[in-house]
Amino acid sequence: MEKIKLGIVGFGFMGHCDADMMATFDDIDLVAVADINPDQLKDAPEGVETYSNLDEMLAHANINTVMVSTPNPSHPEMVMKAAAAKKHVICEKPAAMSVALFDQMVEACHKNGVLFTVHQQRRWDKDYRIMKEVYDKKLVGDMYVIKSELYGFNGNMHDWHIYPEMGGGMLYDWGVHLIDQMLDMVHSDIVSLYADVQNVINEKVDDYFNIIMKFRNGITAEIELGTYYLTPKRAWFIGGNKGSALIDGFNGEGKIVRTAHLLENVPGKITMTAAGPTRSFGPAAPGLLLEEPLPEVHVDHRNYFEHFLKAFNKEEEIVVKPEQVRRVLCVMDAVRESAKTGKAIAFEE
Amino acid sequence: MEKIKLGIVGFGFMGHCDADMMATFDDIDLVAVADINPDQLKDAPEGVETYSNLDEMLAHANINTVMVSTPNPSHPEMVMKAAAAKKHVICEKPAAMSVALFDQMVEACHKNGVLFTVHQQRRWDKDYRIMKEVYDKKLVGDMYVIKSELYGFNGNMHDWHIYPEMGGGMLYDWGVHLIDQMLDMVHSDIVSLYADVQNVINEKVDDYFNIIMKFRNGITAEIELGTYYLTPKRAWFIGGNKGSALIDGFNGEGKIVRTAHLLENVPGKITMTAAGPTRSFGPAAPGLLLEEPLPEVHVDHRNYFEHFLKAFNKEEEIVVKPEQVRRVLCVMDAVRESAKTGKAIAFEE
Repeated sequence: MEKIKLGIVGFGFMGHCDADMMATFDDIDLVAVADINPDQLKDAPEGVETYSNLDEMLAHANINTVMVSTPNPSHPEMVMKAAAAKKHVICEKPAAMSVALFDQMVEACHKNGVLFTVHQQRRWDKDYRIMKEVYDKKLVGDMYVIKSELYGFNGNMHDWHIYPEMGGGMLYDWGVHLIDQMLDMVHSDIVSLYADVQNVINEKVDDYFNIIMKFRNGITAEIELGTYYLTPKRAWFIGGNKGSALIDGFNGEGKIVRTAHLLENVPGKITMTAAGPTRSFGPAAPGLLLEEPLPEVHVDHRNYFEHFLKAFNKEEEIVVKPEQVRRVLCVMDAVRESAKTGKAIAFEE
Repeated sequence: MEKIKLGIVGFGFMGHCDADMMATFDDIDLVAVADINPDQLKDAPEGVETYSNLDEMLAHANINTVMVSTPNPSHPEMVMKAAAAKKHVICEKPAAMSVALFDQMVEACHKNGVLFTVHQQRRWDKDYRIMKEVYDKKLVGDMYVIKSELYGFNGNMHDWHIYPEMGGGMLYDWGVHLIDQMLDMVHSDIVSLYADVQNVINEKVDDYFNIIMKFRNGITAEIELGTYYLTPKRAWFIGGNKGSALIDGFNGEGKIVRTAHLLENVPGKITMTAAGPTRSFGPAAPGLLLEEPLPEVHVDHRNYFEHFLKAFNKEEEIVVKPEQVRRVLCVMDAVRESAKTGKAIAFEE
């Protein structure tokens, strides 16, 4: 197996995360890191070369792959420079702040014959993968709704995330992951999309969004995120005609619920509950609802790089494909347009 | 105080509920009940006259008010006959299966100078009223989202609710209440609406819907109901820029959550959580989230009739006004149209 000789450009929060990850691979050597801020380079791992910018790293470091971990607006420039230097490229998300720019990045990598992928590592999140199993194996029958919810405990953004011109806000930060997961799960064309995007406590960037997507296969997906919900939660719900699957937590805590038997359509007598007179809601009779464990999955963000190592060695196709990343960017554009206009966006896929 | 002398037409599930309720009032005498099905009349309360149809009851019973509790499609005929006989009218929900029919009912009551209202008694539900207090007193500051969720434990419909031609399905049954509550809470024009309506386990009628309404005052409301969710729940969420208010349960169990202080926008160091590297999600630091009780309210469905008694005696204006009922019917039409077309429906209010 050929080794990846990696250079990371942008040695901030994600650059450090990525460096720590690489240290766990025998077949990935972190050769160099580059950052225009000398302070960021102070804690570069021992033995790793440091450069004050990408150009210098490309000119001097013996690398075959570049990981782009700079702030969002600079991704296109970094990716295109790395491609021009014939380096394979892994780019942090969001890959670009517009579809047009992203197309240029893809074209540059294609022209130079290098691999191009985006670090959508949350396809290897445990909660997501469990739900993908539920979906793929139709464990709750024919599905009608899939909900993905992420709620935070406070609401302020960190670092440059407060600046719109830096690609700040939650749609760019987490929306890109949550949308990517949903599109990776539901293999169907989007028919229409409607969204709400709000700035709740952040002046300039979005910190709440709710996205409804209707797919051609009849499934409706809802993705909601609020940093200021004040009730921390990472929840999934998949509803099907044979049961429901639920998760609350990144560790995938949850269950599948089924009904022991369908209630018959009998002329009902009055049932008084806390709900007032109702026969459809209120508590279920004991024994009517049955619980099953969710499928077990074993995944880790490390799997992203294990896979990339194989793709680099031509043993696998790239999993996070540019056309998928492009589709997520198109959805994000539609989300903003829908939120601004109050209209549903029709998709022709 | 003048007494209400009441005749109930339609002595099925709701007719019985209503009769039980009337027995608790000194100033409401249940004089007669009418039903075309003789079986339904067998357990009419002692001393109450029984009739085999509305015409006979109107011709012979000494009543001043008619309660219409027949199946949905017959409401317009019943209301217009009662109005023509100069009786005040309380109609069960949904008042009519089209806005055009409803307009005829309103016109008939107006022309005959009788009161006309609809039994939207869920405006007196405890869970709703607590949240209305949160809303009216701005207990969580400026609000951006209000969610109203009702999930059932099994999914089959009762009696005639399985027939579309009888006005079956959950949009007519509960949608009319949940929409009425939301419009009663948020005093603002609707700007746009998007909805999903599905038949999950019922062949002919809807048993799942999700409605998003954007109001001119910036609030987005979401109303979701699923009879086959298999995770019984009656939940509310109001998110504002000073906190969140939550309820789960018709009894109004819940809390208000605030943050002790806003986290500052500091360049953050890496925080590893079960979520992977994130600084916005995962568990909150101890002491950061503060809980407060929800406001206390004391309401009962009986309040609906207490109020009607006052309206009947000209001491109060009718609370459930025909124009409000009409607006709910317009929203239900828009819900169906949006679900069918995949388009958002623009409102001009």
